[in-house]
Amino acid sequence: MALNKSPYRGTRDFFPKEMRLRNFIFKKMAEVSELFAYEPYDGPLLEEVDLYLAKSGEELINEQIYSFIDRGERKVAIRPEMTPTVARMVAQIHREVAKPLRWYAIPNLMRYEKPQKGRLREFWQFNADIFGAGQHGEVEIIQLAVTLLRSFGATHEHFEVLVNDRRFVDLVFGELIGLDPVSTKKLYKLVDAKNKMVPEKFSTEVRALTNDENKAKVFEAFVSLKSIDEVKAFATAHLKETEKLQALYSLFEKLYQQGLSEYVKFDPSIVRGLDYYTGVVFEIFDKHPENRRAIAGGGAFANLLQIFNEPALEGVGIGLGEVPLTDFLNAHNLMPDLSRPALDYLIAYLDTASEIQAMELAQKLREQNKKVELYFGEAKPKKVFNYSDKKDITFIIFVSETEIKQRDVKARTEITRTFEEILEGTK
Amino acid sequence: MALNKSPYRGTRDFFPKEMRLRNFIFKKMAEVSELFAYEPYDGPLLEEVDLYLAKSGEELINEQIYSFIDRGERKVAIRPEMTPTVARMVAQIHREVAKPLRWYAIPNLMRYEKPQKGRLREFWQFNADIFGAGQHGEVEIIQLAVTLLRSFGATHEHFEVLVNDRRFVDLVFGELIGLDPVSTKKLYKLVDAKNKMVPEKFSTEVRALTNDENKAKVFEAFVSLKSIDEVKAFATAHLKETEKLQALYSLFEKLYQQGLSEYVKFDPSIVRGLDYYTGVVFEIFDKHPENRRAIAGGGAFANLLQIFNEPALEGVGIGLGEVPLTDFLNAHNLMPDLSRPALDYLIAYLDTASEIQAMELAQKLREQNKKVELYFGEAKPKKVFNYSDKKDITFIIFVSETEIKQRDVKARTEITRTFEEILEGTK
Repeated sequence: MALNKSPYRGTRDFFPKEMRLRNFIFKKMAEVSELFAYEPYDGPLLEEVDLYLAKSGEELINEQIYSFIDRGERKVAIRPEMTPTVARMVAQIHREVAKPLRWYAIPNLMRYEKPQKGRLREFWQFNADIFGAGQHGEVEIIQLAVTLLRSFGATHEHFEVLVNDRRFVDLVFGELIGLDPVSTKKLYKLVDAKNKMVPEKFSTEVRALTNDENKAKVFEAFVSLKSIDEVKAFATAHLKETEKLQALYSLFEKLYQQGLSEYVKFDPSIVRGLDYYTGVVFEIFDKHPENRRAIAGGGAFANLLQIFNEPALEGVGIGLGEVPLTDFLNAHNLMPDLSRPALDYLIAYLDTASEIQAMELAQKLREQNKKVELYFGEAKPKKVFNYSDKKDITFIIFVSETEIKQRDVKARTEITRTFEEILEGTK
Repeated sequence: MALNKSPYRGTRDFFPKEMRLRNFIFKKMAEVSELFAYEPYDGPLLEEVDLYLAKSGEELINEQIYSFIDRGERKVAIRPEMTPTVARMVAQIHREVAKPLRWYAIPNLMRYEKPQKGRLREFWQFNADIFGAGQHGEVEIIQLAVTLLRSFGATHEHFEVLVNDRRFVDLVFGELIGLDPVSTKKLYKLVDAKNKMVPEKFSTEVRALTNDENKAKVFEAFVSLKSIDEVKAFATAHLKETEKLQALYSLFEKLYQQGLSEYVKFDPSIVRGLDYYTGVVFEIFDKHPENRRAIAGGGAFANLLQIFNEPALEGVGIGLGEVPLTDFLNAHNLMPDLSRPALDYLIAYLDTASEIQAMELAQKLREQNKKVELYFGEAKPKKVFNYSDKKDITFIIFVSETEIKQRDVKARTEITRTFEEILEGTK
């Protein structure tokens, strides 16, 4: 029986034209990170499952993780996210190195998901983290993310950064609503699900959970907050411990000072499912009406190193998936056309005796950093033209025993050149 | 209990200084491949186990593969090599595209090995393949590999390309020795193991296997061949079907014509364990007496697409592991020092009021493609100097309410500059 030619469900084959786009995206991620002095790192594909049990969300572990027992009886998993790995690595060295640590990676991750638009089982995720920096780090990570998206040509017309603060949410849930931990968790989920519900259903569920009309109204006022000014008014009206909100106010002030007022927006529905966030949380949303999804998400954490018995080291991180980013860039027509390779020359020889010279010319041009394809076998010009058309090659060099001709396919010119003239780059 | 901070056995954490080296190596691989008009591709991390059962060597499947059953009852494996994946991908499209196909990839692979020098469980492997090209492809792939190693500064003093031909080996084993398939396989293994044995043991085993003194002598003559000229003499003396050897002779001739005579050498011990090779096979060996190992290996195959019920498409491939390559480069002192990041500027502000301006300057410089680190918080010059020393930063910009100063740490100069002068790049 013939084998299946398709890739495993939820994974992709990257043929050259897709791979060039992936490389284009990854190169921008690396370049922009390095402009911000973030340094590259990577960790192993497999980690022991315990690492994820300690910090990742429940859904990730129970339903989405690819885990198995290895031949040495260890329970391991293919990494479903990068944060536990980076925490493990930082735990090894944070006592000895100058802080802050600014790191980025573009790992491949796997999650057992039902494949759908924007979600696959294998995907790459850009991760940038800063450790040991506090609020400066929050500003910088958001700035980095905005700069990255702008580097693709996207602007505030295409995306927005929705920001919230776990400390604010905790204050509202604790001080004003005061439910037991289980109901509080359900309330979190309700906030997260709000935009996918009709208002009546949301209203009913809020009342079922709070069991108190006044609390329900405060909660509804909270989830309706639309700007940092409205947060301030809400806090003045309802909250006692407003000093805990200064960090959020000051974050917005700094982001505005950096010219990001058109990008950042307060949004109470951003709570982030992962357990490790303890401060500011944010998501970057596509503004396209037909692609209204999160491209990236992140936030501040205080205790990532605790599970390694290391002293607390605060940090801020962002994760940006290459799948939603690609959908975003496509939705706004920001993806370049890389369907064909960029070659400098196609070299063909018209008689077998000229093969050596053609190969030598190819190799000499490569030494000059020219991308050169050698056309194999005695060439028939017509076939060569057909081939160069398919590959969108502009310059063809025909080598024969009597002469070397350089053809500019687009200009439809053909000039006799010496070996040396070609190496001198005369086009 | 605190969690383990070490990576899973046989895998590595790439901290920035190691990651920069990895990036340096991968970048060369991509650049040199593209100079030869090879196009990038990638496949999934997981494949169905059947794909490997069909083509990979037995040892790989039985002892080294990371396989498990997924949540949907599919038997999958983390890729232990890339060739089956590339064959699967080519099988999908080869009927429609212009040939030859020149492709390269740098996938991460996993094998359950006992970790040792030059071998790890997780590693990256450069793969370059050409499909639909015959002998031209063999020459090109070897040329590409030599060019790649030369791009790191290595020469024929550091490495050699050992070449053999499966067709020649089959002729010797079939025509001259004529054993049953099981003994033939053992003979192959014996060739492979020759250099690890004392001559007496080898001699005894040859006689035990062939059970014929004349055959044993011919076999010993075969394994002692040291050059293509010796092959010719041996063939004339012993073989009938010498026309099958023309391809090997002509390959050497072409490689010599391309100036590779100091790099390539005939070696009868190169047979390659993998089942799919059918023609020329080769390995690239480190010449360093203390690191005498293969850096890369490859060969020609005729039938990779057969398992997908596709018509035959011949090809040539090479695999080059990043672990042996790194050992090779280190053994010959060819690895650059990338222990510190390359930053253009460190910007520090001496009073909180100047933070906005410092951030603005940082962002403007980044727009000019400058790598800029912002020093967080009101800076004490002495602390900034300590920090810049650790990171090997040459230029520090101090921003204060009264002035902007640019310090060249190496030249020990400090000059007052305007915001605009700095943006104009005056150093």
